[in-house]
Amino acid sequence: MKKIPDEIIECLNENNSFLILIHQKPDGDAIGSAIALGKGLKQLNKSVDYYIQVPIEEKLIFFKEIECFNQSLKEKYDVIIFLDCSSYEFAFKPENFPEAKVNLVIDHHKSNYCYGNLNFVEITGATAEIVYWLLKALSVKISEDMADAIFTGISTDTGSFQFSNVTADTHQILSELYTIKPNFASLSKMLHNQKNFCQMKMTGAAIHSMEIITDTPIAMMVLDHETIANYGGALNISDDVANIGQNTSGVIITALLKEVKDGEYRVSLRAKAPYDIHMVALKYGGGGHERAAGFTFCGDIDLLKKDLLDVYQTQRDANA
Amino acid sequence: MKKIPDEIIECLNENNSFLILIHQKPDGDAIGSAIALGKGLKQLNKSVDYYIQVPIEEKLIFFKEIECFNQSLKEKYDVIIFLDCSSYEFAFKPENFPEAKVNLVIDHHKSNYCYGNLNFVEITGATAEIVYWLLKALSVKISEDMADAIFTGISTDTGSFQFSNVTADTHQILSELYTIKPNFASLSKMLHNQKNFCQMKMTGAAIHSMEIITDTPIAMMVLDHETIANYGGALNISDDVANIGQNTSGVIITALLKEVKDGEYRVSLRAKAPYDIHMVALKYGGGGHERAAGFTFCGDIDLLKKDLLDVYQTQRDANA
Repeated sequence: MKKIPDEIIECLNENNSFLILIHQKPDGDAIGSAIALGKGLKQLNKSVDYYIQVPIEEKLIFFKEIECFNQSLKEKYDVIIFLDCSSYEFAFKPENFPEAKVNLVIDHHKSNYCYGNLNFVEITGATAEIVYWLLKALSVKISEDMADAIFTGISTDTGSFQFSNVTADTHQILSELYTIKPNFASLSKMLHNQKNFCQMKMTGAAIHSMEIITDTPIAMMVLDHETIANYGGALNISDDVANIGQNTSGVIITALLKEVKDGEYRVSLRAKAPYDIHMVALKYGGGGHERAAGFTFCGDIDLLKKDLLDVYQTQRDANA
Repeated sequence: MKKIPDEIIECLNENNSFLILIHQKPDGDAIGSAIALGKGLKQLNKSVDYYIQVPIEEKLIFFKEIECFNQSLKEKYDVIIFLDCSSYEFAFKPENFPEAKVNLVIDHHKSNYCYGNLNFVEITGATAEIVYWLLKALSVKISEDMADAIFTGISTDTGSFQFSNVTADTHQILSELYTIKPNFASLSKMLHNQKNFCQMKMTGAAIHSMEIITDTPIAMMVLDHETIANYGGALNISDDVANIGQNTSGVIITALLKEVKDGEYRVSLRAKAPYDIHMVALKYGGGGHERAAGFTFCGDIDLLKKDLLDVYQTQRDANA
């Protein structure tokens, strides 16, 4: 972690009223970062408002500070903080955007184009890591609640310390958090392992449907419309379902087909390096990245299988 | 971590031939600790033999050092190291037990009764944590391979840093490991997420079978004999299957029934605090702890349901 620029610390220290914004569909890092920073600023006797998109994921609603979300909105703030928002567009913002002396961007996304008057963008495992350093620089006393919020941000954005965004700094912060609160086991469990009954059943149905296309490392899973309806709709298909194929030994490419309407599939593709499946998504008007892409598909699933097979074989031969 | 006693460092420094033993059915911490310590001692020009029970779990066989396991066994060693073995009985030992000047116990289990001539037992997240401190005290240069071995031990024994055995020290060590090797993401994935096709299908079948006993927080899963046989036998039921019930929101008690023979079930029970299910296991001649117990059951599954219901209701009322 590089030194925090003086003007960032001054901006937080010398101003009095703050509005915290985070990205749309807020995740653990956005919520955790907002709460830790908000509580930290309040400890310094600042006025803090939050403008946050609801509903918030079930696993995150244990924070008491959530009661302070969306309680008041002034016409004017000293500072509006864009926290964990890679772009201005992706921030969840009030329609009548308040005035502010400073728009301050604090974020960890590589793609952040520094759209604030003041920007502190560092490539870390989570925005919560940056918030931790800021709070220390501001001499805030980190409470157990704030430690929970920082833990939530880091733990969710790093997949419980498994992703490639983890650094020595990440674990250094964690080591310090454990001196504030000795046990994060039940929080960890809640953040990573809990599913509601329908999410669990949907996961089981996806595994049940998984087939490996003969003599290939391509896995296909299909959740048909009836199954999705039975278990409360597509909202109950948790993010990790698309990874089930990839977590099966030997699989290189996975397609998860969710029949959201009769005959209409929302398709999620995954690939392992060096394979690149995003052109399949482009072909069908979707988008994404080399290793994760998605699109809507109506038609014969066998045609889709053939596309995946072609992509695999062409790239396999090119890499041979 | 308390200071390492001088006599432990002297024992490792001043002797020349070592045999490393670990526990039966070795896990990631036993294998990782053995490899890191073995390679460290070899770096100090010591002779090191390993006596290890095979086969080793698929996910662990990537270590090159495994080629050195079970290659030679002398009649006499300076030191026999019992590593990660909570008891003498649980160690995997040669039938003709070699002579040794010292039996040195290095372990992190609370229940360890210090059965060596020399014992270094510290309650840490993993034995690999102790090995890390020992290697530093011995001034061993930790290579990337050794960092992988230590990471494997800690990451597997702490459930990827989620269990309550994690401490500030655990993350401190991790922070230092990331300065030796900058990325453990693919190792993490291999240790925690990969299942073979049959293990994955068995997991899906368990979820598919899961039912919640009406108006209770008790989950039951049954893998029948045909399903188990279809997916290559009980070996392919991974340890985490028993936790599926517990990971479902609202569930307090889970029973997983594995029909290992026609009509004969191996039952795994899990409970959340403060519930205690081990008396159900005792009733059927099994054993275990308050929150995890197991036994063999032949009979009417409805009777077992009734037992669980009784245990739950009695304890719920007692705790009310």
